[in-house]
Amino acid sequence: MTSPLRVLGVDPGLTRCGVGVVDVSRDRSARLVHVGVVRSDPELPIEQRLATIAAGLRAVVAEHRPDVVAVERVFSQHNRSTVMGTAQASGIALLVAAEHGLAAATHTPSEVKAAVTGYGAADKLQVQTMVARVLRLDALPKPADAADALALALCHAWRGGAAAAARTTLTPAQQAWAAAERTGRR
Amino acid sequence: MTSPLRVLGVDPGLTRCGVGVVDVSRDRSARLVHVGVVRSDPELPIEQRLATIAAGLRAVVAEHRPDVVAVERVFSQHNRSTVMGTAQASGIALLVAAEHGLAAATHTPSEVKAAVTGYGAADKLQVQTMVARVLRLDALPKPADAADALALALCHAWRGGAAAAARTTLTPAQQAWAAAERTGRR
Repeated sequence: MTSPLRVLGVDPGLTRCGVGVVDVSRDRSARLVHVGVVRSDPELPIEQRLATIAAGLRAVVAEHRPDVVAVERVFSQHNRSTVMGTAQASGIALLVAAEHGLAAATHTPSEVKAAVTGYGAADKLQVQTMVARVLRLDALPKPADAADALALALCHAWRGGAAAAARTTLTPAQQAWAAAERTGRR
Repeated sequence: MTSPLRVLGVDPGLTRCGVGVVDVSRDRSARLVHVGVVRSDPELPIEQRLATIAAGLRAVVAEHRPDVVAVERVFSQHNRSTVMGTAQASGIALLVAAEHGLAAATHTPSEVKAAVTGYGAADKLQVQTMVARVLRLDALPKPADAADALALALCHAWRGGAAAAARTTLTPAQQAWAAAERTGRR
């Protein structure tokens, strides 16, 4: 009997940071554990916003105890005005993982789309529809940040299927190293 | 008698994160307290690298107890391959400030150059020479990341001179709010 892999997906953002926790079994079936959004007040100084994000993510980790944290990879060519804040929030998510002794991984948006829908250029509605179907939700997950976080968590579990299978024989430290090696240099 | 303002400057980076601590008096004279570089092993997973940076910065804060933390502002148009790691490291520096109840501020490279040399397009050697002169160092501060961190700390103190003067009458919390308001929306 293999216990499911519990993945925390994080769609990083300063104003809204999507978080989704799913349990994924070896047969790829998945169950929703938690979904939500960590928000920070745009009126606050940046350092207090990042501390708010960190506290929110730590609370999710403490409550739901994921095995691994998957964070959306941020690109500098996304030349939105928010990209630096998004990158900073992603750094906070990765730090929170490390501070809890959890392995972390990053996945690109097209990796997530391909893993969840089979199509790397899928639109948001296609991704949300598939996430809702897989998790047997009555409605599309909202807001979009939360849906993206769930998709990211599913992507991570499905792409690392072999690792999930290996969890019965590896120690947590071995699992963490295996996960780090799989995701390679990010 | 006004005590000097102690500023921790951080030149964010994943492989080398420059840190410099200076005491700056109301007459703008300055004294070197600490200078160094927090390094993380490029072979480690990103989350462990960020945790290493966080631990190093926390150690500097614990030992030297700065009044405020100044971090170089990272731009997405700096389209280096390292820009996302730099942004993540800057987020860690800001988080460490907030977690110690310290105000933080960001300054652009040209603000730092202008504050330290009087010329926003000064080259690195001009900046390092002025930092060495102001701090009465026998040699140019090295490596470059450490020199930049010192310049950043001086820039912050000199640009916020009025605030340093106000430190005799404001509580630490009031000072933090004043600093946050001065630096505005970053």
